[in-house]
Amino acid sequence: MDKFWNDYPEIQRDLEEVINIMKKSFSNGSKFIQGVLRDMIHAGGKMIRPAFVILGGRFGQYDRKKLCPLAAVVEMLHLATLIHDDIIDNALIRRSKPTIQAEHGKNYAVFIGDFLFSQCFLLLSDNIAVKDIKKVSKSVSRICKGEIEQFESQYDVNVTVTQYLRRIAAKTAVLFALSLYIGAYESNCGESLSRALASIGYNVGMAFQIIDDILDFTGEERVVGKPLGNDIRQGIFTLPMIYALQEDERGEMSRMLCERPYSEEQVKRFIEFARQTGGIERARKLARKYTQKAFDKISSLKECPSKQVLAEITEKLLYRVY
Amino acid sequence: MDKFWNDYPEIQRDLEEVINIMKKSFSNGSKFIQGVLRDMIHAGGKMIRPAFVILGGRFGQYDRKKLCPLAAVVEMLHLATLIHDDIIDNALIRRSKPTIQAEHGKNYAVFIGDFLFSQCFLLLSDNIAVKDIKKVSKSVSRICKGEIEQFESQYDVNVTVTQYLRRIAAKTAVLFALSLYIGAYESNCGESLSRALASIGYNVGMAFQIIDDILDFTGEERVVGKPLGNDIRQGIFTLPMIYALQEDERGEMSRMLCERPYSEEQVKRFIEFARQTGGIERARKLARKYTQKAFDKISSLKECPSKQVLAEITEKLLYRVY
Repeated sequence: MDKFWNDYPEIQRDLEEVINIMKKSFSNGSKFIQGVLRDMIHAGGKMIRPAFVILGGRFGQYDRKKLCPLAAVVEMLHLATLIHDDIIDNALIRRSKPTIQAEHGKNYAVFIGDFLFSQCFLLLSDNIAVKDIKKVSKSVSRICKGEIEQFESQYDVNVTVTQYLRRIAAKTAVLFALSLYIGAYESNCGESLSRALASIGYNVGMAFQIIDDILDFTGEERVVGKPLGNDIRQGIFTLPMIYALQEDERGEMSRMLCERPYSEEQVKRFIEFARQTGGIERARKLARKYTQKAFDKISSLKECPSKQVLAEITEKLLYRVY
Repeated sequence: MDKFWNDYPEIQRDLEEVINIMKKSFSNGSKFIQGVLRDMIHAGGKMIRPAFVILGGRFGQYDRKKLCPLAAVVEMLHLATLIHDDIIDNALIRRSKPTIQAEHGKNYAVFIGDFLFSQCFLLLSDNIAVKDIKKVSKSVSRICKGEIEQFESQYDVNVTVTQYLRRIAAKTAVLFALSLYIGAYESNCGESLSRALASIGYNVGMAFQIIDDILDFTGEERVVGKPLGNDIRQGIFTLPMIYALQEDERGEMSRMLCERPYSEEQVKRFIEFARQTGGIERARKLARKYTQKAFDKISSLKECPSKQVLAEITEKLLYRVY
């Protein structure tokens, strides 16, 4: 369990239960699959999405037995997309460990991801109303579309800020929003509060992903758990680079970005270029804007212990270095 | 629309509707995805699974508006697994056309499959009770497990008949069974008749897959729509080969199968070996056994027009050459 939750023993306890539910669900698979997926869980990860389901529930009539399986669904959904993502990105390292596709090959990664998807819906159909299955399906559909869009815009030096924001909304913010929503709604918070929480989740998710993308430019490899410049190497131009390219008046960088594969020397130059032109700083500014929106929305919630926790976690999450 | 249904205009009409529903569902994706998936539909395929949903429904109070979306779900599920299968198999040709992964790369194939899965559950949650979502999820889970088992037993010359049967049950028979079941059950046929139909679907599915595997040894490339010996080339040893290996007393073929990649000359020798040792004939015999079981179960159904149609289709399906 990630140390991120050390200060919140109640949430931590429920996240342990979420891990148990996931492990139980994995036991439907072969010994090999079980091993691979358990390794993946134990490699860490902050489990923000399941924690958001739990936290959402704590705004209403929290029922641990009902919400922990839903939290497990959301995390498994996330893991499934990570596994398939890593195929597309040719990623070798994730959470300081080899990815499934690096260790066992792309083929395994395809089916282990599919297996996880199927377990999600199985667990879901045991624990939720049809209406919410629809919400989850819609989110999965949006996540997939986001991934395809990201893939389609690979190496595209003309990608716009709007396209980028749509992409990260689909890729990250949608599931953050869904997590808080579903936790709240299934705990009888009612549509209005549930939607307010969804909107908070959305803004936290947007800020979170922008920060994640910035860390690919500025982080310490050892702390982030994956090699820097990874996005650029894969032709995924994120916000710092998109802003930087707006300053590339003579088109020098654009031309360089069109010639691939990039040498490690070039990757370093691209990162430096994003820094020098203020691309990283502008990206930070937009992340702060989303963070502020999230805080504004949190502060407009009725006072309750969960409100305080949500504010603290949001702060912790968005000032992170890993 | 495949000519397979020419004699059944009512089913054909509903299958046209199924195609429309699928196309509508694809429109949630990008233009590119829509194009790829429409091409896949238009490349043909007999649409047996959705036809079984419709046929199952005709044993009860058939409601076209309710069953066509469910039939679309089943076919989309099937297409999604085909797309991901082709990644694993490195398949280049399917239904006489390049596979998605051959034409657009593995990465696209991963996400287009995922997109289809998500659309399945979206469509499903619009049209069905939670109980049946659970049944569908379970089937998807079993299909995934079957695929993983097949992948894990690649190039394994010691694979047994039992393992093979479990594999094709998961890969094919489960979805055939589900299709008839869900069509019947959702049309108020009751549990007993629905289960009888599921069992018929299961046996048809088993026979169907064994025949499909035999066709990889004996078919005409032009008619089957994919190259012969494809399974062997990928190290997937199916029933004719498993039987043949039982006759390989001096272990000559086993040794040859352990050295890869195989030359085209060797692939031809393996096919010839399966023929000479009676492996193909024995496989045919087992297919006939499953076919007979299906017919026995059909004949024990109460007389009705749908019973006749089911018997005819089963016969047509299991004496096919393509």
